Amino acid sequence: MPPSAYPTQVSNQFVEPSLFRLAMRQMASAVTIVTSGSGPGRAGMTATAVCPLSADPPSLLVCINKQTECHETIRRNGHFCVNALGADDEGLADRFAGRDGSHGLARFAAGSWAELVTGAPALQQAIAVFDCKLLNSCDGGTHSIFVGGILAARVNASQPTLIYHSGSFVSLPQ
Amino acid sequence: MPPSAYPTQVSNQFVEPSLFRLAMRQMASAVTIVTSGSGPGRAGMTATAVCPLSADPPSLLVCINKQTECHETIRRNGHFCVNALGADDEGLADRFAGRDGSHGLARFAAGSWAELVTGAPALQQAIAVFDCKLLNSCDGGTHSIFVGGILAARVNASQPTLIYHSGSFVSLPQ
Repeated sequence: MPPSAYPTQVSNQFVEPSLFRLAMRQMASAVTIVTSGSGPGRAGMTATAVCPLSADPPSLLVCINKQTECHETIRRNGHFCVNALGADDEGLADRFAGRDGSHGLARFAAGSWAELVTGAPALQQAIAVFDCKLLNSCDGGTHSIFVGGILAARVNASQPTLIYHSGSFVSLPQ
Repeated sequence: MPPSAYPTQVSNQFVEPSLFRLAMRQMASAVTIVTSGSGPGRAGMTATAVCPLSADPPSLLVCINKQTECHETIRRNGHFCVNALGADDEGLADRFAGRDGSHGLARFAAGSWAELVTGAPALQQAIAVFDCKLLNSCDGGTHSIFVGGILAARVNASQPTLIYHSGSFVSLPQ
C-alpha cells in the first residue's frame, strides 16, 4: 500500500485533533471505572487512559480531565480505585461515561460496590481492582496524571475482558 | 463465587509485587515500540504502558524504566515515537523486548523504518504512529512518565491490532 493511502500529517505544529483521535482509535485498551470518595461524596467515571507504572512500589497512573467531578474528588480525598471491567459490564461502562444521563452518586445505583483499604468504591465483579493512595500528580494540560500507589488489589477472572477498540467494545476471552 | 476464591490482599502497605503483576495481567493493552534518536544513536523498546493524555494539545504518555537505553536516549534527544503494532509484527514486539538477544541499534535490522518530523524511527507497517516532542517528564520511581506532544501521526489499518493480555499476544480484527 503506498504511503499516500494512509491518513498522515507531518508538520512542525501539533497534529490536528481529528487525526489524533483517528490514530488513537487504533490503540486498543482495557476499560475501567475510576472511583474516589465514599458515602454521599463518591464519584466515578469510565476511563481507558490507565497504565501500569512500576512494581516497586506497585503503582499505576490514570489520566483524568480537570473538568470532571472525579478529578476534584481524587484531589480532595487523596485516593482512587481502578476497576477493570469484564465483558458483562459494558452497561456500567456506558453508565459511568454518562451515556445514560446519570451523574454523581446516582451512577452507583448500578453494580455491586464494596470498599477495600482507602474507602473508594471497589466493584465486586470487576476482573481486577486496584485500590490506590495518591502518590503524585503531574500536570497534563487539560488533564492531570494521577499516580497511585496500590494498597490493595483483587483479581477475578470469571468473565471475559472488556476492550475498547475502534470506537466499540470488544470481548476478549481470558 | 465467594470472595475467598479471589486472590486478594488488603493491608495498609503496598500490595505484594506478585499480586500487582497478577492483577495487571488482567489489563489488556496495545503493544507498541517506543523509539528515540536517529542514525547510530537510535534506541527502541517494546512498551505497553502507553496511554492518550489530551486532545489539546494532542498528547500521550509513556512509562519508561530508568535503567533502559531508551530512557537516556529520550532524555537526550527530547523526542520519541510510539509505533502501535499490528498482529503481523509479534516478532518485532519480541525483538524489541530483547527476547531474541538483540540490543541497541541492531534491533532496527528488522522492520522497515522511516522518519516523520522528529527524526525518531517510525515503523512503516505500524497500525498507528505518534511522533512526539518531549513536553514534560514526571518522576515515577523506577520509571519516568514521559509526556509527548504529537507533531505527526500516521494511521494504517491494514492489519489486525496486536494486544497483550494475560501474558500472551492476541490478535484483534480491525
